[in-house]
This record gives sequence, C-alpha cells and structure tokens, in this order.
Amino acid sequence: MRPIVTLLTDFGLADSYVAEMKAAILSEATDIRLVDISHQVPPGDIRAAQYLLGRAWRRFPVGTVHVVVVDPGVGSARRAIALHHQGHFFTGPDNGVLTSVLNEAEVVELRIPRDASPTFQGRDVFAPAAARLAEEEPLAGLGPSLSHPVRLPVPTPRRENGVVEGEVIYVDRFGTLIANIPGDWVQGAKAIEVSGKPVGAPRRTFADVESGAFVGFVGSDGLLEIAVRDGSAARRLGVGVGAEVRVR
Amino acid sequence: MRPIVTLLTDFGLADSYVAEMKAAILSEATDIRLVDISHQVPPGDIRAAQYLLGRAWRRFPVGTVHVVVVDPGVGSARRAIALHHQGHFFTGPDNGVLTSVLNEAEVVELRIPRDASPTFQGRDVFAPAAARLAEEEPLAGLGPSLSHPVRLPVPTPRRENGVVEGEVIYVDRFGTLIANIPGDWVQGAKAIEVSGKPVGAPRRTFADVESGAFVGFVGSDGLLEIAVRDGSAARRLGVGVGAEVRVR
Amino acid sequence: MRPIVTLLTDFGLADSYVAEMKAAILSEATDIRLVDISHQVPPGDIRAAQYLLGRAWRRFPVGTVHVVVVDPGVGSARRAIALHHQGHFFTGPDNGVLTSVLNEAEVVELRIPRDASPTFQGRDVFAPAAARLAEEEPLAGLGPSLSHPVRLPVPTPRRENGVVEGEVIYVDRFGTLIANIPGDWVQGAKAIEVSGKPVGAPRRTFADVESGAFVGFVGSDGLLEIAVRDGSAARRLGVGVGAEVRVR
Repeated sequence: MRPIVTLLTDFGLADSYVAEMKAAILSEATDIRLVDISHQVPPGDIRAAQYLLGRAWRRFPVGTVHVVVVDPGVGSARRAIALHHQGHFFTGPDNGVLTSVLNEAEVVELRIPRDASPTFQGRDVFAPAAARLAEEEPLAGLGPSLSHPVRLPVPTPRRENGVVEGEVIYVDRFGTLIANIPGDWVQGAKAIEVSGKPVGAPRRTFADVESGAFVGFVGSDGLLEIAVRDGSAARRLGVGVGAEVRVR
Repeated sequence: MRPIVTLLTDFGLADSYVAEMKAAILSEATDIRLVDISHQVPPGDIRAAQYLLGRAWRRFPVGTVHVVVVDPGVGSARRAIALHHQGHFFTGPDNGVLTSVLNEAEVVELRIPRDASPTFQGRDVFAPAAARLAEEEPLAGLGPSLSHPVRLPVPTPRRENGVVEGEVIYVDRFGTLIANIPGDWVQGAKAIEVSGKPVGAPRRTFADVESGAFVGFVGSDGLLEIAVRDGSAARRLGVGVGAEVRVR
Repeated sequence: MRPIVTLLTDFGLADSYVAEMKAAILSEATDIRLVDISHQVPPGDIRAAQYLLGRAWRRFPVGTVHVVVVDPGVGSARRAIALHHQGHFFTGPDNGVLTSVLNEAEVVELRIPRDASPTFQGRDVFAPAAARLAEEEPLAGLGPSLSHPVRLPVPTPRRENGVVEGEVIYVDRFGTLIANIPGDWVQGAKAIEVSGKPVGAPRRTFADVESGAFVGFVGSDGLLEIAVRDGSAARRLGVGVGAEVRVR
C-alpha cells in the first residue's frame, strides 16, 4: 500500500507555501500520496483546524500521516511534535492544534534541523518528519519522548433537567452551524434555540423542511447541526463560533 | 494503467468535505488517481456543474470515473445514480446534473447503505461507488437498471434568417461570457450583441483587439465566448448567466 | 522514480481549466505526479508568477517539469517555449514569466499543433509538452533552439554608504511584505523603513515581538520580509508591490 500524507494548514492556496511543503515531502520519498484536508483555515485559528482534523483523520486508512500547520507561534519556544494515535501518525506544533488526538497518544518532540527557517517549519520540520513517518521510520527515531503536550481547553456541552446546552464550534461554507452537542443527546428533542432564537425540532435532513426554512439535524460527523435549506443559517441568524445552542 | 477518479462539487475547499470523500475513495483502493475538476461550483448551482462536467470529462482517458456532487436535495427522495457513457463512468445525484452525459447511457440506481449520512452522500454513497467503478466492478453490480433519469432542460440556441440567438450559460474567473452558440454557427458573422450591446465581430483570439476592448471568439470548448482583453466582460456589461446573445 | 509535473497558473480553481490541463497530461502518461504550485496568481500578473516560480521550483527533485501559464498574450505572436535549467524543465509562454530560470538555460521554441485552441494553449500546447518532458523525451525533440527568450526587467536592490534600498516584490496571504533584499545584506542593520515608515530592526522570527507589532526578518526564501505578528503588514501600512524598502 502506498503511504498517504494529509496536509492541513492556514497557508491558503495563492502562495507557494503548500507546494514547498509537498516538494519537501516528495524529495524524501516520491511514492507518497498527498491529500489536502484544507489550507483555508482562517490565519492562526487553532480551534478551526482542530475541528477539521478531528473529523477528517479517522476517515483515512490506518497508517496515514497527518501534517497540521496552524502555527502563529512559529519560531518561538513552542515545541514541534509528532505522535501516534490509533494507528495514525500526526505532526505539528505543540500549541494545542493536535488536542483531539492526544488521548493515549505516544508523543515525541521533534529535533529542529539547524538550517530550518525559523518562520517556515511547515516546510523544514513538519514535512520532512511526515515523510519519514510515511516511510515507516519509527516514531522514536524522530526525537525524545514528551509527556505533557499542550492541550487546548475544549468547550463541553451540558445536560440538565432535559435541557442540553452547548455552543457553535464551526461554521462551514454553506453557513451551516456545527454545535458541540452529540447527536444522541438530541433524540426525541422538541426544540432547538440558537442565541435564543427558535429554529424548530431536530429533523433527519434538509429535505424535511421547505426551502428557506431552518433545519436542525445530526450531521455527518455525529454532531448537531443547524442549517437553512438552500440558504445560510450563519447569515440568517447573524451568529458564528461561540453562539449558544440550547435543545429541549 | 492506474484508474482516475475526478471530483466536481460545490463543497468549497475550506471545510474537510472534499478530503473526506477522497479518504472514502482511498480506503477502498489506494492506487486510484484523484483529480479535482472544481469544488467551487456556487452552492446548489446544478447548471454550472453541468457545464463544467460537460467540457471536462471528455478530456480524460477512457475508463475515468467522474463523481459529481452538487446536491441541494441530499437525503430527499431523489435517487442516487451511476452510469456509463462513451467509455467513461459517472456517479452523482439524479437531479439533472448529469444531463449532458445521459444520451445513450446505461444507468443504474445506487443502493443507499443503511449507515450513510442523510446529509453527506458524497462521502458515504458516491465516493464508494466511484471507487468500485474505478476498480472495474461492473456497473450492474452497483444497483438495478434505471430507465428515466432526471434531465435538466437545456437552453437551445436558434438560427433564423441569418440571425443566431442564444444565451450566456457560464461566466468564468476572468469574467468571460460563454454562450450556448456553437462556433461553426458564427463563421463569417459580422456582429455580436450581448443584452442588446454591440461587442464587435468574431475574432480569432484576444490578441486581435486592443487591451480593454471587447473580443468575441470561438472558445476552447467550441462555443462562442465574449471577453474583454485584460479585463472582465461580465463586469463591463453588467451581465451574467441567462443574458441574451445575438449574432448576425 | 515517478516524474513530477508542477502547475502554476492564473486560472483559479472555480473553472475546469486546471483539470483540463491535468487531463491532457494524464492522457499522455498516467503515471506522472501532479503538484499545484498555485492557480491564484492575479489574472495576467507575470511578476507574481515569476516570484512564486523562483522560490518553489528548486525545492522539487531534479528532473521535475514545471508548467507556468500566466499568459495575457495567448494566441498572439508571442512564442511558446520549453527549457532546461539546473536539472529541471520548464515550459510556458515566452513573455518573461520564466525570467528567473533563463540563466545558462537551453531553450527551444515549441511547435504549435494546428488544432490547438488559440485561447487555451495551457491545455493544448504547454501541458502536452510537459508530459513529453516528464516522459524523458529530449528537449530538442520539442522544437528548434531559441537564443533570445524574453526577459522581464527585474528590480534590483542597491547598497550605498551603509544604506540598502529595495522594494516590495510580493505580498503573501498573511499580508507579509517580501522585499527584493537579500538576507545577508541586512545583517547587523538597525532600522527598516517601508514607504518611509519605520518598522524596527531585523529580528529572527515573529516570536521576537509582541502580538500586533511589526517584525522584519530574513524569510524562508532568504529575502527580507516585513510582517505584523498575528496581523497584516500590507493592511497596516497600506502598501503593496512596488513600495520602497530602506534598511540602515
């Protein structure tokens, strides 16, 4: 099986940064498959990157290496890490962006090559590390073990007296709001509110409401989502990440 | 020869949806080549997707599988289909987006796996079907034959008394207007009008006019196009898809 | 080793043009690896393309073929060329976009196939030429030798009495300004000015200043860059390509 390396960054696609990372990987090993997860994470938005990684990585075959570079502290004292979690490998800055895959993970601190650019470790540190992992070099060969990687506080939903409270953790291209509320917490629920505005009871899919109406449903990642059929819930409600979501 | 799967969606590149489709394909068969046609179809714009598919698919080698997911009715009663047309395979929703490849096509209705997300059939239905077709599973293995797939009404140009009438069917990134008028209908023509505004006689290419001037020509897909050299015809004329185009 | 072809254009990702180029390449040779450098060069911006090519190409393995199509004069009398430079191959219009790789290059003029679209030579001329080079066809097989390819005047920095004067040659997605001043010209410098506004002394990396502060540093391509930590220098200073940069 040819190894797969995925890339998730905030570099955008206009500049050559992503291509330079790919060149670094292919220079180590030309037979690696490269798959972009996204390069349009808002600049420096560690939480958005963490959400995208959290839903995408498990869809890939075991053995895949995931490179995540959303790294506002590049070149600072923050460490560079690589880790093994449930058969997948991950590499990126130790700034919390890998929080969702740290549980029971084996983590190492990457050595920084002396000639690495202090402003582009994606190319000079993380990409080469990913190539070596894809080539089946053992994790321990990349650096010493690290016991306390940085974790990002993750907002947790609450459930009390039949009321669920959570918040919007991501807004997608269609303006659909994704909440941190597990789908099985809303089974049988009668009403959803976003920032105090009622958006109806949970449905199965878009097609269960008229065009232009709100629709809440359990999304493709197992979380509660709120959309407008053929429209944008984010625009209609004027809300974004952090907006309160209540389900009764 | 390694099989090729192309992807054409309205998912954008900011979210992880396209990567999740690719993961589903590579999980079935890691040796497939993936080529993006576009993921920036305007949300739900079946006609734009149909235009892009119509011009791109035939450029790929015989045996290529094309996945098209522009699917505002996802999860509704609309069917999911796969088809064979002139040596190529196609899969997508039965909402008319595949109209341009339905002639003399062999069509089947895809079975929907019970655990498929009702809001993300691109990942859970169409991507796996594409992978199986790329692996040379016979079309008939994917589901029962379907005799009347949905067709989108396609605007047809007219020709009468030396006057050709058509309309703009696509506007590209450069603001170039693409009309539904075959190039050989405009040979020897003297004048083109868009929404009643004259834009000159057909030329061979941009370089035949000054910078900033209108230029009509037979485009790279064989249809009449109207551009502004080093500028945008769409912006200059204030028109878009549906604008009337007349050639005398 | 599987051959690599990179693509750098101003075609954007919304239309099918890039996919049609890739289809043309894969139709010649399915085992070629395709890597996008960028397709979001501003329409017709030859200098931006030249900058991106200049920094990206050398990161790829020897033998890589680079296709560059930023071609406002497509279909005019301007020639189509291919060249060999330091073990890499390049193909694109003879409009100066390849200036940075012309030194000591072996250049040929491509023959234009009779059925090539006069408005889309990226697909019908440059992509097939790239595929043939990737398949190790000798450069001389693609056309006759050319001795005076078009060169773009490149702005050169000056150094006098301890003062360095240059200009901004590129602005990246983060709003970071890249100047045409080599990093080793600014060692020990005390002050940088952009359009007359002071932005401090050169530092090593972003982390050496507070969030929101200006930071000048030697960037990942060896040139002086001016950024705002967690912000945009271009927006803060209201400047772009061509802005004067002085270092003392």
